[in-house]
Amino acid sequence: MATLGDIGVAATINILTAIIFLLAFAILRIQPFNDRVYFPKWYLKGIRSSPLHSGALVTKFVNVNLGSYLRFLNWMPAALKMPEPELIDHAGLDSAVYLRIYLIGLKIFVPIALLAWSILVPVNWTSDGLQLAKLRNVTSSDIDKLSISNIERGSDRFWTHLVMSYAFTFWTCYVLMKEYEKVAAMRLAFLQNEQRRPDQFTVLVRNVPADPDESISESVEHFFLVNHPDHYLTHQVVYNANDLAALVEQKKSTQNWLDYYQLKYTRNQEHKPRIKTGFLGLWGKKVDAIDHYIAEIEKLNEQILEERKKVKKDDTSVMPAAFVSFKTRWGAAVCAQTQQSSDPTEWLTEWAPEAREVFWSNLAIPYVSLTVRRLIMHIAFFFLTFFFMIPIAFVQTLASIEGIEKYAPFLKSIIEKKLVKSVIQGFLPGIVLKLFLIFLPSILMVMSKFEGFVSLSSLERRAASRYYIFNLVNVFLGSIIAGSAFEQLESFLKQSAKEIPKTVGVAIPIKATFFITYIMVDGWAGIAGEILRLKPLIFFHIKNSLLVKTEKDREEAMNPGQINYHATEPRIQLYFLLGLVYAPVTPVLLPFIIIFFALAYLVFRHQIINVYNQEYESAARFWPDVHGRIISALIISQILLMGLLSTKGAAQSTPFLLVLPILTFFFHRFCKGRYEPAFLRHPLKEAMVKDTLERAREPNFNLKPYLQKAYIHPVFKDNDYEDSRFDEISGYCIEDSDDECVTVPTKRQSRINTPAVSHASRGSSRSPPSK
Amino acid sequence: MATLGDIGVAATINILTAIIFLLAFAILRIQPFNDRVYFPKWYLKGIRSSPLHSGALVTKFVNVNLGSYLRFLNWMPAALKMPEPELIDHAGLDSAVYLRIYLIGLKIFVPIALLAWSILVPVNWTSDGLQLAKLRNVTSSDIDKLSISNIERGSDRFWTHLVMSYAFTFWTCYVLMKEYEKVAAMRLAFLQNEQRRPDQFTVLVRNVPADPDESISESVEHFFLVNHPDHYLTHQVVYNANDLAALVEQKKSTQNWLDYYQLKYTRNQEHKPRIKTGFLGLWGKKVDAIDHYIAEIEKLNEQILEERKKVKKDDTSVMPAAFVSFKTRWGAAVCAQTQQSSDPTEWLTEWAPEAREVFWSNLAIPYVSLTVRRLIMHIAFFFLTFFFMIPIAFVQTLASIEGIEKYAPFLKSIIEKKLVKSVIQGFLPGIVLKLFLIFLPSILMVMSKFEGFVSLSSLERRAASRYYIFNLVNVFLGSIIAGSAFEQLESFLKQSAKEIPKTVGVAIPIKATFFITYIMVDGWAGIAGEILRLKPLIFFHIKNSLLVKTEKDREEAMNPGQINYHATEPRIQLYFLLGLVYAPVTPVLLPFIIIFFALAYLVFRHQIINVYNQEYESAARFWPDVHGRIISALIISQILLMGLLSTKGAAQSTPFLLVLPILTFFFHRFCKGRYEPAFLRHPLKEAMVKDTLERAREPNFNLKPYLQKAYIHPVFKDNDYEDSRFDEISGYCIEDSDDECVTVPTKRQSRINTPAVSHASRGSSRSPPSK
Repeated sequence: MATLGDIGVAATINILTAIIFLLAFAILRIQPFNDRVYFPKWYLKGIRSSPLHSGALVTKFVNVNLGSYLRFLNWMPAALKMPEPELIDHAGLDSAVYLRIYLIGLKIFVPIALLAWSILVPVNWTSDGLQLAKLRNVTSSDIDKLSISNIERGSDRFWTHLVMSYAFTFWTCYVLMKEYEKVAAMRLAFLQNEQRRPDQFTVLVRNVPADPDESISESVEHFFLVNHPDHYLTHQVVYNANDLAALVEQKKSTQNWLDYYQLKYTRNQEHKPRIKTGFLGLWGKKVDAIDHYIAEIEKLNEQILEERKKVKKDDTSVMPAAFVSFKTRWGAAVCAQTQQSSDPTEWLTEWAPEAREVFWSNLAIPYVSLTVRRLIMHIAFFFLTFFFMIPIAFVQTLASIEGIEKYAPFLKSIIEKKLVKSVIQGFLPGIVLKLFLIFLPSILMVMSKFEGFVSLSSLERRAASRYYIFNLVNVFLGSIIAGSAFEQLESFLKQSAKEIPKTVGVAIPIKATFFITYIMVDGWAGIAGEILRLKPLIFFHIKNSLLVKTEKDREEAMNPGQINYHATEPRIQLYFLLGLVYAPVTPVLLPFIIIFFALAYLVFRHQIINVYNQEYESAARFWPDVHGRIISALIISQILLMGLLSTKGAAQSTPFLLVLPILTFFFHRFCKGRYEPAFLRHPLKEAMVKDTLERAREPNFNLKPYLQKAYIHPVFKDNDYEDSRFDEISGYCIEDSDDECVTVPTKRQSRINTPAVSHASRGSSRSPPSK
Repeated sequence: MATLGDIGVAATINILTAIIFLLAFAILRIQPFNDRVYFPKWYLKGIRSSPLHSGALVTKFVNVNLGSYLRFLNWMPAALKMPEPELIDHAGLDSAVYLRIYLIGLKIFVPIALLAWSILVPVNWTSDGLQLAKLRNVTSSDIDKLSISNIERGSDRFWTHLVMSYAFTFWTCYVLMKEYEKVAAMRLAFLQNEQRRPDQFTVLVRNVPADPDESISESVEHFFLVNHPDHYLTHQVVYNANDLAALVEQKKSTQNWLDYYQLKYTRNQEHKPRIKTGFLGLWGKKVDAIDHYIAEIEKLNEQILEERKKVKKDDTSVMPAAFVSFKTRWGAAVCAQTQQSSDPTEWLTEWAPEAREVFWSNLAIPYVSLTVRRLIMHIAFFFLTFFFMIPIAFVQTLASIEGIEKYAPFLKSIIEKKLVKSVIQGFLPGIVLKLFLIFLPSILMVMSKFEGFVSLSSLERRAASRYYIFNLVNVFLGSIIAGSAFEQLESFLKQSAKEIPKTVGVAIPIKATFFITYIMVDGWAGIAGEILRLKPLIFFHIKNSLLVKTEKDREEAMNPGQINYHATEPRIQLYFLLGLVYAPVTPVLLPFIIIFFALAYLVFRHQIINVYNQEYESAARFWPDVHGRIISALIISQILLMGLLSTKGAAQSTPFLLVLPILTFFFHRFCKGRYEPAFLRHPLKEAMVKDTLERAREPNFNLKPYLQKAYIHPVFKDNDYEDSRFDEISGYCIEDSDDECVTVPTKRQSRINTPAVSHASRGSSRSPPSK
């Protein structure tokens, strides 16, 4: 077991690493040529312009103002300065509420830490359970003297831990309830203040039943004209444009290569660049690169045009889904919340997601297929969680010396060299595992896509909850009980319901030092690394030197990134879990967690203000999940404490602990009923208020043309084609409103907070085909 | 272990009992003086009139037609004759669908029994596991030779049981799905064909927020005028009339006494009946009974009038709830399914129950209180299920010889007598337990009432699901593993997840004979006793001779009774569970279950046609629960078979069985998504169709007066007071429609199928106060 000294050394190393990262960041960010990497948000908002345009040549690239180096930490107060309402305005509610997760961490753990250090630590310290144990040759460290391990078996002092556990639970629940209330109010206020947006009036209808006499479009129109006669306005059918999207994607990458070779040629005009046309440019005929790519693009343009015509003309490319728009928000709220037909698998309505977060390729999945997909993915996730070590171990065998020699004997001479051998033996297995863990969120995202969710936010929420479970089983339980998840499952099945909390509970105090180190490596240094943005920094400079020709290209090379909710939130939850589990057991761990939350809050606040650009805005739709996971962490901590205490001869206190999880669970049920509807449903009163206000403000606004083209597959919006040509092809305006179509309003309004076009929805065609 | 001979004896006894019951029924039912006991439904429909009015004196009371005694079983084909659509028309959809539960039993178990007897029984019979065991001195019976016990350890024949288990599962699921589909279609057709009823246009609004400036009524009107401007028609507030209801109830019982003494006096005019006014008529001043009760009634009449005025005038007696009616079914469907306000604890809307199934006293419970009540009842039910033996044992101690001697020493001389002693020792403990079990459904009903449900159907559904769990734990598991539920819980907590199915599974084949006897006693003889209606028969004749003065009194004394869904359905479920669990293990049990289902189907079809009169009509709202419980029985049977097979050295087949519960669970999820909405939600399309049809048919129908008085607390409807007086007091018509009020249509329409006034809603005031 680690002593205080060991932890001190680890802390020093990690604090140094963190400081190095922060210093590097401080230096890099004030260099003008990195400006677009560290302040992309401001460029996207159009407020900041490139510093490269003005001043002397040197100052254009390197910052020579020495004073600014001295103030290298001044980003911290700057990050805190922006008040929350302005932050919501600047970055959207999702980002602002995401930051509140870190704040909750502070709100929960600072008072708990104070209480624990002023009561629990003295109680633990003044006991002498370990000294008695030492007589029986049990070794222990200084940290254990501060933990519950120091209390002798059957002591009455365990009542302190019991009372403290109640105090911690009540405090956590109190903070959670206040926060849920606050976030729900913020969400409602946000939705109420939002400007007019197409999705407020629109409902997504899926599983439109096939009708032999009518096209999908006619069928939708008739159904809603009959069943929502006073409210129905217009609708847009959904085209299956997955092939088209693939072509557009291909054209974009060809265009990139063309740009690259043109730039190369302008810099070195002596010989024209030539490439081989074969596989990966490795063999085949040598041709002039620029001519080749120009011809390729021309060919693709033609294909795209043809595909567009085909999609439009072919009735089979109309999916049985549509976006139906209503005259009022009230009408849309009614349609989204009610069942339309007596067959609950037809005419399924739900509130339409924002146009940019629609996951187009999933819109046509029929009802039965959805159930089957869900079943398959549940089973797949079960195996992924409990058996993921099997393929990893297999790849690790392949990547071992013997594996390589067996399957690729021609490499034998190389790997027999000492240096190569030690690298393979020492790093490869670890790298294979690390690679898997890095790609895990993406794998889970692909699984969610297969499951058939239709909006990016729901995809991310599902991936996040799976990632959380994976972390819980493999990181938390996996670290406490050494052994793979499958072995745990095996042993849990063999143990009785009473034994499991005991087995885990007993191991908890022992693993405290491990988790302290984990928090420092993953939490402190990792968060400090986040602010450095090493990957975007490198990619920006590579792209900048190879591809960028115009200012627009440079803007595209910027890649501000975003909070990857599905990858980051489950990791924060691990800290909540650690904090709550260790609060009554080893309170020494709490300050480390508090430092993590404080540092992460600072860093992410800075990044959200200056860097990230969210793809979509879900108005904090994810909050019920966050709340639910903290509650489950709380219940896990209570059960484990129960297990631990019952092995410590404090069985008489167990019944009192048994009450806690039950109360916590009902607190959760209460909160769910009280606040969750604000995140799921759409109150009619608020819709009516907004409708009335708007009618009073703009009595003559024509809604129909505004909504008529709001939900178009992004490939149809490609800038290379003039809108007129698309209109001709798509034929949206043919029906009855040729004159209205002239006044198509700008669609920019809907992106007030987060102006980027969604990468995922644009690239949705790359996901596995799901029909 | 019982042999085939033992079971034969038990069967003979039970078959004889059943035949005696059926014979008694056949004789009693054709006696004219019992006509109202065995055919009350026809009297209530007004089709049958009393045979006592015509014919000679003897034939008026006793049937002398000997031919009719010979055809004593002719009620059976008669019961089957009525086709289902007519049955729905006659007795309502609830009853018709309730009968389908028995039919499902036949549909599931007849093919399963055929398959099991043609494949499983020969496989079991030709094995010789028991003969080998006999060499090791294990005794066994003939029945065991037909069961899985006869197969030797590790034999490959277990694959037959595995395959059969798959076949049984698929067949059960197939029947369940077909049936769910059918019932959902029946429900939709029933709702579609229903005549105009107030609840189709009405929504129950609860938790109306208090407004300092407006009364509840004004507040409701303003809210719905603003938020449903095109659809709102009218509303009725709910008065807290619990005190008034108590007074009305008291008056009714006083009236009964008055009737009794008046009847007594007319029969024996010699001396006027006199009573004592003290407690229970045991002491106090002696007064003339008739005068006393007349005075009492007069006093109560005054009190009732006063209370009515108070309820009307006092603002505090208006509960924060209201029945809001809309102009169209579409408007009501929209309001019932949407959230009204951003605060999800205010303005809660749900589809209004029928007026006669409203549970009035629960209408005012606020949101937070509901959560707390639910928590308390969950905990109470947990203790009731697992610890109910503790108070029973306590009462049993009190009721033992020593207990009585200790607490009531003055009885010592009596109970020391031998006969009394043996009665107390032999019967009292059993009677205490039996009494508890008889009252259990009522106890569970009281618990549901406390939980705050607002309609009788939801109260019964909740009580039914609790009763099912109680039966599962205490009857099924309790019989298999001897010992109280608490001891089971204790041992389950100590065992591992893998061990529990083994422990239970192993005991299953051994308990087969016990359950066969149980089916014969509870299922065969019990059902045959049901048709005899012994209790209503006796009560009818007592009332008839003591209280009945007029034809109306006689009608009230009839008490047709009804299917007590919450008490009977969970008991049917036990047979499904037994059948599914024993189908692959001891197929000998199946014929007994089939006989139960067939007999019960016959008996209940007869009773529903001739006797029962449902209090309310929920349009088969309970079906999802029935479906869910059969599914859970299926999953339990699969897990127990898994446990059994793994102890039989057939571990290699366990993984194949593991797939079954997962598939079954997802089948359930699929059915839930596919069919359940038909039982919960209200499709707009169907509402629109009905609205349109009705507008076309009756364009001038005035809905407002029709709806204005539909939801009135039953005590206000008391016949003793003329309607005009009530109108004056309630003041419903004051507002704006004095002329419309004149044309109040008959409310009889809403009771076309089930004409009785709800006893429970009339007597709701007797339930524990719940404010």
